[in-house]
Amino acid sequence: MPVVGGQADGTAAPIVTLTTDFGLSDAFVGLVKAGVLGRAPGARIIDLTHSVPSYDVEAGAFWIERSFRFFPAGTLHLGVVDPGVGTSRRILLVEHAGQLFLGPDNGLLGPIASLDGAVTRAVTRGFLGAAGLTRASPTFHGRDLFAPLAGLLACGTCSAGDVGPVIEDWQRPSWLRPTETPDGVLGRVIIIDRFGNCFSNIDSESTVKYEKPVGLAGGHELPLVRTYGECPDGSLVILANAFGVLEVACVGGNAALSLGLRVGDRVDLRPTRA
Amino acid sequence: MPVVGGQADGTAAPIVTLTTDFGLSDAFVGLVKAGVLGRAPGARIIDLTHSVPSYDVEAGAFWIERSFRFFPAGTLHLGVVDPGVGTSRRILLVEHAGQLFLGPDNGLLGPIASLDGAVTRAVTRGFLGAAGLTRASPTFHGRDLFAPLAGLLACGTCSAGDVGPVIEDWQRPSWLRPTETPDGVLGRVIIIDRFGNCFSNIDSESTVKYEKPVGLAGGHELPLVRTYGECPDGSLVILANAFGVLEVACVGGNAALSLGLRVGDRVDLRPTRA
Amino acid sequence: MPVVGGQADGTAAPIVTLTTDFGLSDAFVGLVKAGVLGRAPGARIIDLTHSVPSYDVEAGAFWIERSFRFFPAGTLHLGVVDPGVGTSRRILLVEHAGQLFLGPDNGLLGPIASLDGAVTRAVTRGFLGAAGLTRASPTFHGRDLFAPLAGLLACGTCSAGDVGPVIEDWQRPSWLRPTETPDGVLGRVIIIDRFGNCFSNIDSESTVKYEKPVGLAGGHELPLVRTYGECPDGSLVILANAFGVLEVACVGGNAALSLGLRVGDRVDLRPTRA
Repeated sequence: MPVVGGQADGTAAPIVTLTTDFGLSDAFVGLVKAGVLGRAPGARIIDLTHSVPSYDVEAGAFWIERSFRFFPAGTLHLGVVDPGVGTSRRILLVEHAGQLFLGPDNGLLGPIASLDGAVTRAVTRGFLGAAGLTRASPTFHGRDLFAPLAGLLACGTCSAGDVGPVIEDWQRPSWLRPTETPDGVLGRVIIIDRFGNCFSNIDSESTVKYEKPVGLAGGHELPLVRTYGECPDGSLVILANAFGVLEVACVGGNAALSLGLRVGDRVDLRPTRA
Repeated sequence: MPVVGGQADGTAAPIVTLTTDFGLSDAFVGLVKAGVLGRAPGARIIDLTHSVPSYDVEAGAFWIERSFRFFPAGTLHLGVVDPGVGTSRRILLVEHAGQLFLGPDNGLLGPIASLDGAVTRAVTRGFLGAAGLTRASPTFHGRDLFAPLAGLLACGTCSAGDVGPVIEDWQRPSWLRPTETPDGVLGRVIIIDRFGNCFSNIDSESTVKYEKPVGLAGGHELPLVRTYGECPDGSLVILANAFGVLEVACVGGNAALSLGLRVGDRVDLRPTRA
Repeated sequence: MPVVGGQADGTAAPIVTLTTDFGLSDAFVGLVKAGVLGRAPGARIIDLTHSVPSYDVEAGAFWIERSFRFFPAGTLHLGVVDPGVGTSRRILLVEHAGQLFLGPDNGLLGPIASLDGAVTRAVTRGFLGAAGLTRASPTFHGRDLFAPLAGLLACGTCSAGDVGPVIEDWQRPSWLRPTETPDGVLGRVIIIDRFGNCFSNIDSESTVKYEKPVGLAGGHELPLVRTYGECPDGSLVILANAFGVLEVACVGGNAALSLGLRVGDRVDLRPTRA
């Protein structure tokens, strides 16, 4: 098993990204970073986001899966959105495209584990014991287990193959994909960003299915455009966004407010009716 | 006096943590980091939190004292919650367990200075002058004094013994400890985290005092549990949290909202009445 | 053309600061950092602020211009407050005092480009092509253009002179300076910080114009003081703040709330009437 993350002497400068629902109002994130640097002193830590809504595994999964391609090989992505902290849910380590992904087995890493060539392992108690990670607060595995584990893996002190056996029965989230019907692609809002843009779970490539596709959300029919700039301010549109999914937007405004959209609401892509 | 922070050539990679009430909406924190890196180019800066409520010295003191054990020797912790900025309040430097703590003399470092073996010094004007720190904006000592001072100490350009004399009359905060009475341990809420959990100032070890201890907060009697998972959603409980204090929590909910608790409100630990 | 940012082998540890209106609730900032580190692996990234109000070019310009003096030579400042993303607005690179400033040509870098000795260039399509930056999402130039460009420049892979011709017709913001009249200096609120202090666009040095200057904001006459501590709590005052501009403050309180001030509202400096 090749070492993915770095050099075994701990001097490497691997990138470790963090995606959590810890927020920034407390010292939780700082303590996760202490845990990473304690084992990987040279690591460069990048906050992907700590503002995942509490326990919103789907939002966390989205950011990890839609962001990793922008990081170099050797990067380790740690995700901690973990409503099951303190229970017996497993810890997963996924290898894909020369990068590592660490997180609880609750669907957070499902989109990554589903990718062609991904190898998924469950971290064993034996490994945690050998790594000296036997005492963890039942409410803060982010600090006590995930962070030091990320550090060990990122700097190459241990390699992916060490942590446990390859498994196939990791949690497969049901929310990954929209439903395809003869009438169109039926999706949902999964992220609302700070500008009020509503990200759907419909892949941008779905638009090639129809000659003249049209969006449908909040009871409105939405023209498909390429950029915000094509329509006057206040226009409600649907477009392929920078993360490869269809997004409902209001030019110069806030689509979520304008349409009353919330996470989980329907967004459809349909052919224009004759 | 041994150099705690690093190598005198400025090439060390010491960790510097920051705890402030500056928030993240302005450029204040970025400028503190500029000041640290200006003197300690190799420092690795970790934000512990910048969301301490404005001037809430007690909350800042809590995060510093309950977090430092997770950082390696050589770490410097800078705390700036400083309602007295621009006045003649002193600047303190505390050494404890191979780590350094820098902040205003207003109680912020009181819990650290109280620890066995801690050595506390007051930074002299003479030292500030010799370090070239004579021109400070009266409203932003974080950028103009604390940050460069932290950099100098973190990278070992100067050592703790250089800054000034050991003192004993640092500010001893009255809020450090709960009151012990024959009826029980009478404490207070000191932190409400993003999940609505209410951290008290009652040490977790206090629970061994009673055979069957019970919590009391917001007019409710609260069972002592080990993890959130032991009770159904909506249960109000008290438990020893990951920071070593008793915490009032609502399983799957928000205890502060459910009980109407605010910072400063009473939280007691009592023996179960016969 | 000297290399400003670092060594051409990519091993330098230049500082890159970020100032955006991306907020911290999504993964936008993390992906900008990925783009910087992808080209400048050794860069040390400092968040100046990501809480610039959406599209508030003036606020972004303020923080960049009032912060750069606290950073060492070789620093690159990247600003992305870019309502024109995806349109044909130009990308600017300004050199000043051994530092680099990168951002859209919309006034964000106007205060820097106006400084004596500043040299401003427009990045050409030819340069972007040669740098491999030809595929950019129309909605996220921060990740796809600005970040890698910042990385290339920060680590010295390319130098300022490579990016394009020196220009003079960069956007000159009309909001830079207050109006000087016989009655006084007529300014505006440009920033309201987390404490409710209202920063004006009136330079602190303007106070020397008058023997006994007085501030005027929200219908109140405000005494000019040197520090918050000179007046009792609740006092409304005007003072020269740590950023070199006059600031309306309420001692121990929130001036914006007390006076009902909002960004854009008038703040004047006048001589005391006889």
